[in-house]
Amino acid sequence: SFARIDHHRHLRRGFPEVVFGEGKSAEQIARILEAMLPWDDPVLVTRVDPQKARKVIEWHAGLTYEASARALFFQPKPRPLEDSNESPRGIVQVLCAGSSDIHVAEEAALTAQLMGSQVQRFYDVGVAGLHRLLHLWDELQNGAVYVVVAGMEGALPSVVAGLVARPVIAVPTSVGYGASFGGLSALLGMLNSCAPGVAVVNIDNGFGAGYLAAMIAES
Amino acid sequence: SFARIDHHRHLRRGFPEVVFGEGKSAEQIARILEAMLPWDDPVLVTRVDPQKARKVIEWHAGLTYEASARALFFQPKPRPLEDSNESPRGIVQVLCAGSSDIHVAEEAALTAQLMGSQVQRFYDVGVAGLHRLLHLWDELQNGAVYVVVAGMEGALPSVVAGLVARPVIAVPTSVGYGASFGGLSALLGMLNSCAPGVAVVNIDNGFGAGYLAAMIAES
Amino acid sequence: SFARIDHHRHLRRGFPEVVFGEGKSAEQIARILEAMLPWDDPVLVTRVDPQKARKVIEWHAGLTYEASARALFFQPKPRPLEDSNESPRGIVQVLCAGSSDIHVAEEAALTAQLMGSQVQRFYDVGVAGLHRLLHLWDELQNGAVYVVVAGMEGALPSVVAGLVARPVIAVPTSVGYGASFGGLSALLGMLNSCAPGVAVVNIDNGFGAGYLAAMIAES
Amino acid sequence: SFARIDHHRHLRRGFPEVVFGEGKSAEQIARILEAMLPWDDPVLVTRVDPQKARKVIEWHAGLTYEASARALFFQPKPRPLEDSNESPRGIVQVLCAGSSDIHVAEEAALTAQLMGSQVQRFYDVGVAGLHRLLHLWDELQNGAVYVVVAGMEGALPSVVAGLVARPVIAVPTSVGYGASFGGLSALLGMLNSCAPGVAVVNIDNGFGAGYLAAMIAES
Amino acid sequence: SFARIDHHRHLRRGFPEVVFGEGKSAEQIARILEAMLPWDDPVLVTRVDPQKARKVIEWHAGLTYEASARALFFQPKPRPLEDSNESPRGIVQVLCAGSSDIHVAEEAALTAQLMGSQVQRFYDVGVAGLHRLLHLWDELQNGAVYVVVAGMEGALPSVVAGLVARPVIAVPTSVGYGASFGGLSALLGMLNSCAPGVAVVNIDNGFGAGYLAAMIAES
Amino acid sequence: SFARIDHHRHLRRGFPEVVFGEGKSAEQIARILEAMLPWDDPVLVTRVDPQKARKVIEWHAGLTYEASARALFFQPKPRPLEDSNESPRGIVQVLCAGSSDIHVAEEAALTAQLMGSQVQRFYDVGVAGLHRLLHLWDELQNGAVYVVVAGMEGALPSVVAGLVARPVIAVPTSVGYGASFGGLSALLGMLNSCAPGVAVVNIDNGFGAGYLAAMIAES
Amino acid sequence: SFARIDHHRHLRRGFPEVVFGEGKSAEQIARILEAMLPWDDPVLVTRVDPQKARKVIEWHAGLTYEASARALFFQPKPRPLEDSNESPRGIVQVLCAGSSDIHVAEEAALTAQLMGSQVQRFYDVGVAGLHRLLHLWDELQNGAVYVVVAGMEGALPSVVAGLVARPVIAVPTSVGYGASFGGLSALLGMLNSCAPGVAVVNIDNGFGAGYLAAMIAES
Amino acid sequence: SFARIDHHRHLRRGFPEVVFGEGKSAEQIARILEAMLPWDDPVLVTRVDPQKARKVIEWHAGLTYEASARALFFQPKPRPLEDSNESPRGIVQVLCAGSSDIHVAEEAALTAQLMGSQVQRFYDVGVAGLHRLLHLWDELQNGAVYVVVAGMEGALPSVVAGLVARPVIAVPTSVGYGASFGGLSALLGMLNSCAPGVAVVNIDNGFGAGYLAAMIAES
Ligand SMILES: Nc1ncnc2c1ncn2[C@@H]1O[C@H](COP(=O)(O)O)[C@@H](O)[C@H]1O
Ligand SMILES: Nc1ncnc2c1ncn2[C@@H]1O[C@H](COP(=O)(O)O)[C@@H](O)[C@H]1O
Ligand SMILES: Nc1ncnc2c1ncn2[C@@H]1O[C@H](COP(=O)(O)O)[C@@H](O)[C@H]1O
Ligand SMILES: Nc1ncnc2c1ncn2[C@@H]1O[C@H](COP(=O)(O)O)[C@@H](O)[C@H]1O
Ligand SMILES: [Mg+2]
Ligand SMILES: [Mg+2]
Ligand SMILES: [Mg+2]
Ligand SMILES: [Mg+2]
Ligand SMILES: [Mg+2]
Ligand SMILES: [Mg+2]
Ligand SMILES: [Mg+2]
Ligand SMILES: [Mg+2]
Repeated sequence: SFARIDHHRHLRRGFPEVVFGEGKSAEQIARILEAMLPWDDPVLVTRVDPQKARKVIEWHAGLTYEASARALFFQPKPRPLEDSNESPRGIVQVLCAGSSDIHVAEEAALTAQLMGSQVQRFYDVGVAGLHRLLHLWDELQNGAVYVVVAGMEGALPSVVAGLVARPVIAVPTSVGYGASFGGLSALLGMLNSCAPGVAVVNIDNGFGAGYLAAMIAES
Repeated sequence: SFARIDHHRHLRRGFPEVVFGEGKSAEQIARILEAMLPWDDPVLVTRVDPQKARKVIEWHAGLTYEASARALFFQPKPRPLEDSNESPRGIVQVLCAGSSDIHVAEEAALTAQLMGSQVQRFYDVGVAGLHRLLHLWDELQNGAVYVVVAGMEGALPSVVAGLVARPVIAVPTSVGYGASFGGLSALLGMLNSCAPGVAVVNIDNGFGAGYLAAMIAES
Repeated sequence: SFARIDHHRHLRRGFPEVVFGEGKSAEQIARILEAMLPWDDPVLVTRVDPQKARKVIEWHAGLTYEASARALFFQPKPRPLEDSNESPRGIVQVLCAGSSDIHVAEEAALTAQLMGSQVQRFYDVGVAGLHRLLHLWDELQNGAVYVVVAGMEGALPSVVAGLVARPVIAVPTSVGYGASFGGLSALLGMLNSCAPGVAVVNIDNGFGAGYLAAMIAES
Repeated sequence: SFARIDHHRHLRRGFPEVVFGEGKSAEQIARILEAMLPWDDPVLVTRVDPQKARKVIEWHAGLTYEASARALFFQPKPRPLEDSNESPRGIVQVLCAGSSDIHVAEEAALTAQLMGSQVQRFYDVGVAGLHRLLHLWDELQNGAVYVVVAGMEGALPSVVAGLVARPVIAVPTSVGYGASFGGLSALLGMLNSCAPGVAVVNIDNGFGAGYLAAMIAES
Repeated sequence: SFARIDHHRHLRRGFPEVVFGEGKSAEQIARILEAMLPWDDPVLVTRVDPQKARKVIEWHAGLTYEASARALFFQPKPRPLEDSNESPRGIVQVLCAGSSDIHVAEEAALTAQLMGSQVQRFYDVGVAGLHRLLHLWDELQNGAVYVVVAGMEGALPSVVAGLVARPVIAVPTSVGYGASFGGLSALLGMLNSCAPGVAVVNIDNGFGAGYLAAMIAES
Repeated sequence: SFARIDHHRHLRRGFPEVVFGEGKSAEQIARILEAMLPWDDPVLVTRVDPQKARKVIEWHAGLTYEASARALFFQPKPRPLEDSNESPRGIVQVLCAGSSDIHVAEEAALTAQLMGSQVQRFYDVGVAGLHRLLHLWDELQNGAVYVVVAGMEGALPSVVAGLVARPVIAVPTSVGYGASFGGLSALLGMLNSCAPGVAVVNIDNGFGAGYLAAMIAES
Repeated sequence: SFARIDHHRHLRRGFPEVVFGEGKSAEQIARILEAMLPWDDPVLVTRVDPQKARKVIEWHAGLTYEASARALFFQPKPRPLEDSNESPRGIVQVLCAGSSDIHVAEEAALTAQLMGSQVQRFYDVGVAGLHRLLHLWDELQNGAVYVVVAGMEGALPSVVAGLVARPVIAVPTSVGYGASFGGLSALLGMLNSCAPGVAVVNIDNGFGAGYLAAMIAES
Repeated sequence: SFARIDHHRHLRRGFPEVVFGEGKSAEQIARILEAMLPWDDPVLVTRVDPQKARKVIEWHAGLTYEASARALFFQPKPRPLEDSNESPRGIVQVLCAGSSDIHVAEEAALTAQLMGSQVQRFYDVGVAGLHRLLHLWDELQNGAVYVVVAGMEGALPSVVAGLVARPVIAVPTSVGYGASFGGLSALLGMLNSCAPGVAVVNIDNGFGAGYLAAMIAES
């Protein structure tokens, strides 16, 4: 039946449903995880603040909380977060424009790592000080796919896409004020990128970008 | 210098700048192509109507016009548009929801083919008659990446992403009226997709989706 | 006179004005109910949180609070919430896409039940895992009318409407973030549904959908 | 298989897919109808202007064009458009606020009639001259369901819903200028109706409203 | 000089600048009033909550706080709020659609009274129960100008304007949720009123409507 | 009955329904006027271009076309458009900011004149050259009510309201480009006027403003 | 008096009012110029298409039409458009991202030149091919002020501002499609620039940017 | 290398990166400043509330907090905030419309002063009482550049630009309610200014306006 086929997919890809932690109580999260942890699959709960995380860990001691990514996770086999270089998969490179975008960038990076990708991070390389990005030119050529996170005018993905030959996943963030309209400004900028090879996910959706990047890098 | 490195990229990827034909006269397009055609690289001009195409072909007889994609192109070595099955690259599958979305889908398909990808097309498989899509389940498992084109509520990419294990590039179209607000409705729907593995390009941007899909499929 | 005729309508339909509890104090609600309870008609107060509900019940002990629907109500004759099958009315089926939509779905379900409809609930059947919905196909054929609740891209009503032959009342919810713009994304998606037989109520308006569904089912 | 079940639904309901004529050439419409007409089912093509209609009729002489509804249709058994009173189905009443809304109202009325409903029309009864509507009070009580069409501020559905005890399908129109923003003003007004029992379809979507009304009336 | 002329205007009209209390501390308000009270002119501070009002009254004991209007005021000569009938000025009638609109309606009423107008109030007469308004028909004919306050779909001003022969000042309120978008829905509805004789002020701007109504009534 | 009372109002105010000419053919307008002209009431058709006007006048020779106001009208008793000074009514002053706003200003002026008001016009007095307005200070003091028409940033009504003691009806126009968004910019500016005594009508609605101004001036 | 002072300003700055040609007929423009040309001041008419320009020149033979800037102008003393280097004023540098932005850039350049500034042009230097801009680094250091024109995502002003130490006037253009929403995307991007030293003018407002740049350069 | 050149710019202009304090903890700010203070350059942290400021000053005693500007700063050489008149630079004049705009105006003024500009302040000179601004006419002629801050309808920059011959930097503020939409109304008004010589920064961006004004004044 249909569900069986879908289950097959989960087994094959080693990644069950991810829990969206925002708006759920620690108790609700704990109960959901109770049904997931026995399968020894990787587990990811996004958008969890430290207090809630601490409470959930009281229930399930095996979980790890990564504050910078606001994520709670479990990785079945003790695999170091920073993968070794001999990985046959491509490298996911995560860039962000400003320091306020780091939470979203870390969510993307952690998601990709949990899905088995090697990740490299280049943060605070916004277009207002272009030399920061240009200095990375050689290193950027190693990426198989790029997650580029930026708020405000969201110009970084276009600039990165102009420097590399691989896909760019653009993540607008809600960082900004006034006419940033909660990330709308960055979102529109990225959708109108004049550099081909860019696609966009929802505002602040680091998880979605990391997931897609890992999918692309694994091929 | 910088430009030299960028030029290197064009040589390596075999794909020079694509000309956006809208708002340019036949004369302007012809003159731009004059500078591009001597390189014997593939050439693509998007958003060209039949009259304009005919005029440009009077200048440059070697060009082909594909009306369904509204595109004018030149492919250096006589490579059949429908690639043979032994291609080591992944297959780009292009789906669209309704028959009015076909122009955009064809722009995506043609772009990916010119970039060297094998393309399969599944058109008119919108979610209002779900059985049309479910019948394709087996064939869909062959895709390395999906370009999913839809207007109105833009629900097709979410449904497709729930059935497959590879990246989905969602293309909202301006097809619709009233509260579709020129494609905004489909765009927002796709950005809020509840299925991970989906990223979005600009409204009606078949070119961008095909380009990105070919990038992903070639890895 | 006019008011008399309108009063006649209330008598005939057994449903007086519903109280919108949001922004009203427990005292204000209690005082309004004081004027309504003597009529022994059903009474419904929507959007009441548990604390406020407890206070109102201190005044009027006969009221019941349903936390999942955030509603306070009174039903004149002790009629079990899950109606028996011998009802001559059609069945109202309430579906929702994700678990965060349940509050809105329950408001719809409770409203329809208070108006005398038999209700069946199918929750967490979003389009990203389509098999969940397809498994329900046989049961869905029993519905006389469907209330379909979804946030984010709001694609579920289109898919349901494609599977059944009876009216679908679509309820967008404010569940989501970023480009969901407080439910606008789901609202626009539902208004642009490519499946005929769908109409839409306001964002998070479970009450309005349940009310209309009961009206349709009673005919 | 799945498609078979869906086909069953078409047979049972006697209504195959409706053709959206806007943006399709007379040739395209004619070719689509060629595949539909042999089934002897009712056929409906919406949003067709007179010139295009005349050309399509040259291909398929059996079609009728209704200019006020901008629709081209075929009805299998010679059933008079205005049904006899002994119909066991409920009556669909179609109201509109101003004379510019009549095209949309007629599209709704024709659709409901083709689906087998008896239809009554009350046009030019906008809220700025309320007596026009109040004079209809007695006749309005005969409706099983109401399609209420209005542009500009879109207030008519709320007022009608306050006078009757059956479902109201509200249709915003793009009639207006300036801050009507192409029908957005009427759409928002209708979604925020303070009268329960109202649901809304897309701007100018007379077809969708008539279809849903016929569904409701047939129960 | 220019300022002198403007000062003349204040003397002539008996109404100095009104203080917008929102976002100002009790201390700031008290200090501003210190400069205004010696002139023995009427004084009005809008958008003041009870706590802040109590603190300001500790400084200036002669002030009155009207909680329903959220306003703090001083009226030089002891003039009863409800003016006698022998006033040569026209009567300002203030209507509102629902009970949640009363704060805004009261702000309008109090402002008009402080400016010397006689005011009549008709609250909770929304269009969903039209008989409430129609019963007032005779009394409405006494108005010289109408302030009509409504949230959600904002239909009341159009209906009132259709019943009377004098100006209607429409005040949209932020009452509602979802697609009311903080009052935008009511605002657009009122701007698109199909009844001539209606003009609109900002969302929740009871003060502005009362001020303008008093201006019109005094002529 | 109700309609009779409303008819009484028309007799009393001497002003029947105004015809909105946009989107109506010359034939349609001529036929509507056929039903109105026998009453010997004033007649007004707005938004008529010169060609259409000429055709309508072929049917009804007694009509006058005023090109600057894009209006066709008939005035029963030969009353000069510029009323004599002994009128007991207040004067309606119509101001506009730029020369592109004149069509809208003239529609307002003509409407007020047809309703019996004396009108004074002050055009091209935008705030970018303030001296033009300040020179009019003395004359402005004669107004009983002001219609202030402006596009782009729509600042003129605030400035005028700060100079006078009588009501200001603000009319935003669609004059402008880019971020004027079809008059939205002027509309929002006027709704947010920091000068009390201003109310706003729809974008380009000169008719509505003139109508309301005449109502105010006649009191 | 006031006007006299303002007139003084015109004399001092040598720049009378500029005529906005869009929506004015050739006759209207010719008549306005008749009043301006006798003063022997520079004259500028913006947004004039070639046909209209030709007609106006038939009236006033001394005018020059610059098609790339869509502008008609007169410069009193024969001053070459490209100023000599010994100018004591700073240089205005005009950059644009793509070739479709050139009309707007030329309008800015011509305006600044007519106001007496020396102008340098750098066109087609969009951020998708960054090397084009970086190659200009040395030349960019000569600018006293920059007009930076871009459509689509509007990222160029931020990048330029990060490379220079002088003011950047950003001009969004309506170039683009879909989610560019007529230039909104570029406008928002520029307003949210993360590089200080950037201010923004209206969409497509080359004239305003050139005017402001000349003002800044002349100090 | 590139960074070196950029560093050169900082040395030359005496102004390193400004810290955006909002959303950063006192500890984060303190640590960033630790890296900046040793350079003895001016330091500016914007958007700091008093509590946070006090904590940061506990770490770095040499910092000054300016509550009206919500800014924390350090100025290397003891230079009085109000510069002497013999400065060769032009004067930056900062105007604001209402008292609620003062925080933003002060942020602009302080930024310009830290960058070495002489600043003059004219507050509470909104267009509803024009004489306040006209009285300043003589003083306004001394400005080299104007920062004009206003919320609500944002009309002040147009009026100021019409009175002076130097650049106006317009700053919309989020002051207002209802249809001010968080400053959108003022922003659109300013972008559509009918007075040439105006450019706009983001809503509430006093820092950006002060920075740009100082840049312009220093030339
Ligand atoms: N249909 C299209 N949609 C979006 N971008 C396009 C399209 N066709 C070409 N382009 C891009 O537009 C740029 C060329 O623009 P232009 O110089 O105006 O021809 C190139 O960077 C292309 O990648
Ligand atoms: N949750 C709800 N959503 C929308 N309308 C509601 C809701 N609950 C009650 N109402 C309507 O609100 C009106 C009562 O409002 P009020 O007088 O403020 O209690 C009635 O007409 C109800 O039909
Ligand atoms: N220029 C106009 N703008 C707004 N409303 C108008 C205008 N001209 C006429 N009307 C109104 O439109 C209604 C008539 O519409 P119609 O029946 O379509 O001619 C009347 O209620 C008039 O008050
Ligand atoms: N109030 C402000 N508004 C806008 N930008 C600012 C503000 N304060 C600092 N910045 C800019 O923000 C950047 C620093 O951001 P951050 O690294 O997050 O401190 C610098 O480029 C500053 O120019
Ligand atoms: Mg930084
Ligand atoms: Mg189809
Ligand atoms: Mg779920
Ligand atoms: Mg009518
Ligand atoms: Mg009520
Ligand atoms: Mg002018
Ligand atoms: Mg180019
Ligand atoms: Mg003030």
